[in-house]
Amino acid sequence: MVKRYLDLISLERALALIRESFSFTPGTEVVPLGDAAGRVTAAPVFARFSVPEVHLSAMDGIAVRSAETTGAHEQHPVTLADAAPVNTGNVIPPGYNAVIMIEDVWVDDGAYTIRRAAAPWQHVRAVGEDLGESEMVLPSLHRIRPHEIGALTTYGLTDLEVLHIRVGLIPTGSELVPPGVRPPPGKVIESNTLMASALLRDAGADCRRYGIVADDPALIRDAVVQGIDENDLLLISAGSSAGTRDYTADVISELGEVLAHGVAIKPGKPVIIGRISGKPVIGLPGYPLAAFTVLREIVMPLLGCYGIRSQAGETISARLSSTLHSDIGTDEFVLVSAGRVGGAWVAVPHSRGAGVQMSAVRANAYIKIPAASEGASAGSLATARLMVPRARAEEALLITGSHDPALDHLADLVARRRAGADPHFTHVGSMGGLLALKRHDCHAAPMHLLASDGDYNLPYLTKYLPGEDLVLVCIAERQQGIASRDALTLDDLPAHTFVNRQKGSGTRMLLDHLLAERGIDAGTIQGYDREVTTHLAAALSVKSRDADACICVYSAAQALGLEFAPVGTERYELVMQRDSLSDRRMEMLVETIASDDFIAILESLGGYETRLTGVRRELL
Amino acid sequence: MVKRYLDLISLERALALIRESFSFTPGTEVVPLGDAAGRVTAAPVFARFSVPEVHLSAMDGIAVRSAETTGAHEQHPVTLADAAPVNTGNVIPPGYNAVIMIEDVWVDDGAYTIRRAAAPWQHVRAVGEDLGESEMVLPSLHRIRPHEIGALTTYGLTDLEVLHIRVGLIPTGSELVPPGVRPPPGKVIESNTLMASALLRDAGADCRRYGIVADDPALIRDAVVQGIDENDLLLISAGSSAGTRDYTADVISELGEVLAHGVAIKPGKPVIIGRISGKPVIGLPGYPLAAFTVLREIVMPLLGCYGIRSQAGETISARLSSTLHSDIGTDEFVLVSAGRVGGAWVAVPHSRGAGVQMSAVRANAYIKIPAASEGASAGSLATARLMVPRARAEEALLITGSHDPALDHLADLVARRRAGADPHFTHVGSMGGLLALKRHDCHAAPMHLLASDGDYNLPYLTKYLPGEDLVLVCIAERQQGIASRDALTLDDLPAHTFVNRQKGSGTRMLLDHLLAERGIDAGTIQGYDREVTTHLAAALSVKSRDADACICVYSAAQALGLEFAPVGTERYELVMQRDSLSDRRMEMLVETIASDDFIAILESLGGYETRLTGVRRELL
Repeated sequence: MVKRYLDLISLERALALIRESFSFTPGTEVVPLGDAAGRVTAAPVFARFSVPEVHLSAMDGIAVRSAETTGAHEQHPVTLADAAPVNTGNVIPPGYNAVIMIEDVWVDDGAYTIRRAAAPWQHVRAVGEDLGESEMVLPSLHRIRPHEIGALTTYGLTDLEVLHIRVGLIPTGSELVPPGVRPPPGKVIESNTLMASALLRDAGADCRRYGIVADDPALIRDAVVQGIDENDLLLISAGSSAGTRDYTADVISELGEVLAHGVAIKPGKPVIIGRISGKPVIGLPGYPLAAFTVLREIVMPLLGCYGIRSQAGETISARLSSTLHSDIGTDEFVLVSAGRVGGAWVAVPHSRGAGVQMSAVRANAYIKIPAASEGASAGSLATARLMVPRARAEEALLITGSHDPALDHLADLVARRRAGADPHFTHVGSMGGLLALKRHDCHAAPMHLLASDGDYNLPYLTKYLPGEDLVLVCIAERQQGIASRDALTLDDLPAHTFVNRQKGSGTRMLLDHLLAERGIDAGTIQGYDREVTTHLAAALSVKSRDADACICVYSAAQALGLEFAPVGTERYELVMQRDSLSDRRMEMLVETIASDDFIAILESLGGYETRLTGVRRELL
Repeated sequence: MVKRYLDLISLERALALIRESFSFTPGTEVVPLGDAAGRVTAAPVFARFSVPEVHLSAMDGIAVRSAETTGAHEQHPVTLADAAPVNTGNVIPPGYNAVIMIEDVWVDDGAYTIRRAAAPWQHVRAVGEDLGESEMVLPSLHRIRPHEIGALTTYGLTDLEVLHIRVGLIPTGSELVPPGVRPPPGKVIESNTLMASALLRDAGADCRRYGIVADDPALIRDAVVQGIDENDLLLISAGSSAGTRDYTADVISELGEVLAHGVAIKPGKPVIIGRISGKPVIGLPGYPLAAFTVLREIVMPLLGCYGIRSQAGETISARLSSTLHSDIGTDEFVLVSAGRVGGAWVAVPHSRGAGVQMSAVRANAYIKIPAASEGASAGSLATARLMVPRARAEEALLITGSHDPALDHLADLVARRRAGADPHFTHVGSMGGLLALKRHDCHAAPMHLLASDGDYNLPYLTKYLPGEDLVLVCIAERQQGIASRDALTLDDLPAHTFVNRQKGSGTRMLLDHLLAERGIDAGTIQGYDREVTTHLAAALSVKSRDADACICVYSAAQALGLEFAPVGTERYELVMQRDSLSDRRMEMLVETIASDDFIAILESLGGYETRLTGVRRELL
């Protein structure tokens, strides 16, 4: 039964296939009005009575017969015989047909004098002014907006019939453990159905998660039979690929039919579209970002066919900060951090690994590289769909360059100050940041590049960004050192395994400088060529016994309980164009760097000297 | 204590006053991860362990030592001594450092032959590839997006500390009855706190509605004392004006202080900003749309100060279809229906009455006329903020012209067909629609104008839109007649009271034609000058004994149980530019008009002849 390769269909074809293959008869339920916001009407809603049902005064004042006010003006005041005092909302007594505001009435001993005629029906809320008895308030399949609850209440409604789409979610896989259990090596926490449930509930579906089913066709079959019976739509998580333990397609074939196995999207290719008892069954891929992509691009449109549509984010046109290669024939989705740099939107791609869920946490947008294209070049414009409200995206600060664990704490502090700035970090090393800054692909670049004269950063800026009006803000002076499990030092490296940082990172350049100083040949260090991109990733390799030593900042070694042999203190600075200092977001960030709160955090993390924290230097 | 006039401050000043006057210390609570989507983190969230915690295979294939694969190529296959078979997600055995995909391996009797060298760490998900132990996943005050629930689960989280802002809502007013009770004349259903609750819950607040309090200062005081004690923020609905029964400001003064009474916004002017025990208290105006405006423009930003921000809609630039006058010094908000006509967005304003809640139901956007401006002219561009997702606004069809009760049913049918079209009707009469069509301010205009030659519509189009390439689609032939409580006919009108339709409406023009035919002088009809804008509003005036008779279509008289004396059958057609027929939305609408379902609805409503329904005529 196992096929090694999938027969891919296009995303467009997959969506058309879904539209053609089902009748999408939604279930309904009746909910109290107070719970109806966000739900979708199952039938048109009619007013139970007119609002108002009688003529009401729209003002505090007096009700009059307009004919009796004719001729009143400044030079000819008219005293009315039988005006009736009314407050806003009072019933207009029979026979009266206008209201004069109390401010325009001279009251004297129960007599009312006016100096202007009243037009018929002025300041009167006539019967049915808002809505008439029997009129339609809302059509079918309308997603109820929160403010409409007030109107519906006023028109006499107390509960509403709304769509009720039941979605079953079956997690399968012998490697899964339930949430809350620390997975032993090779096992993973079952998280995809929780994510699916959160996404589909947000769109308005009623989700039911079933227990984890092991990779056993008979058990999967039983679960699917129950899931189809109890729901309108069934999602089976994982087992949708074409490997030896992928039974989902076989089970669907047995109970119904597989309409498509494999869609040309990335991530998310091994998806199954099936039908059992006339109901849709979707086999989700196991990689979290593949599952997320299939949920967003296939399952959400499927829910839309029932009448509950998700609220897609705004789109913007953004300049790509780096080139993205992509297979022709595949619609590829890439998570990005989008920010407005100067007047233009810039999109910085995140890791494209389908297992790197942090990419979806860090991203505020995604772009689609269409099947017809082989990729997108750095500097070209791409359409990005925001995953946050636009106002939030406008707050994004793109900070690209050298990594330090203190940056996340800085971002937390900025958030706690409700500063209206949202830092997005990309770890590409000091040189990478400097080049991104030169291209205006970021707002600021954290860097620590030791020059031959012993100074940090300035000489590199003079060389690579000549003539630019730059400002450097010191984040901290920080300790770098050799982290290990056995108190190794720099001189011990040739006899041990090592994990390095990426080329262009200040830390690697510092290492090379130190090795040269000591006359150690990098070629003798086993693992010198193995690269990771953050201090913590390097320290993790040491902790997990992948390597005996690495070079990193004190706080990373400390966080993982490693030994630390200091090799030097360096000036870690944030560099930016001077004019970006007048940007409110950057102002907030720089203010936060100089704050006592941030200095306290640096001191609690350890390995930072803070006497220069917040100090500015200028170039030019 | 009563002041007749409020001391208005600007909206900008009101928001600054709020920011300056409170400390905004939010409460927090711990919720299970499954309920955390949409909530806001109260503290940074850290990973409990690395993901993955050991090196895993990223593919189905074999684990190898990369050094042993060196030199393998097409002409030089290498058979490996001790490769280890691995599936995706399996742990890489110690000592191995790369994976080769099974597709690239020749398996023969337990021996593995390869034809390409494996780079170190290829197809391996290294320890911490996603995230390292101790790393920050989310900062404080981050609104959790549904898809992030998966990542948080994977990183070992099971519950989260999130903000918990308690908002108390006290409805006051002796005229109020609770939802579900049909209000006697002069009473109204208490709906504003239900609306407020729906809006604030949607933003993430925890709302508590208290019982209705009569207009009695002592009772209001007791309720406020309890509300302040039990909540972080208190909203008092109504009594915020400066009338004789408006006690809210006095009670706030007594228990704390009134910071501002009156903000220069429309609707919403009589708002109170107060402080009791250091907590914010807002007095909401009683008119529903005034309350809605204050909630959106003042209370939402106030919630944002605690860290929970609402998701404002997208903004678009739209051409106004009519002139809006506005007081200088007042920020005025006007609800509109926005739709894309040709390439441009057009905004059609709805009724500005603060009691007309249907305006907020019908609108998909609103515009702000800034305080510095005296209004906005027809044809000028205004910034409109959408109250629906942009994709939904793109579906709006602006249908401006003559009214008929069947149009709402047509809209319901379009929705039920999930046709991707969203009709927005504006009732301005046949002539108004014709002129809107000429200005490209709508997609289509329903009309029924009887010409002297006995034909309908075509002669008017030839005269007013000469040279335009127009198509007319017949909605129905419909019966007009005299509706009354006592079987009155046209000839009875001079002896009875009447309610008329607005100038420029086809129905009024029909009446004038009929009166002229019979030689009846319009001046002899009492109420000839009183205008309403829909058939149902006219029928309602008759039903509520405001007038003895009106002219309207059969279905309106029928809906309200009135007698109906037919006066003629007219051709009710939808006219549009020919090129709009190629617009998918219009295609759907026209298709729906011609459908059996719509014909069945017309027949069930009564008073329509359907033999021409869906029939097209062309001009030019």
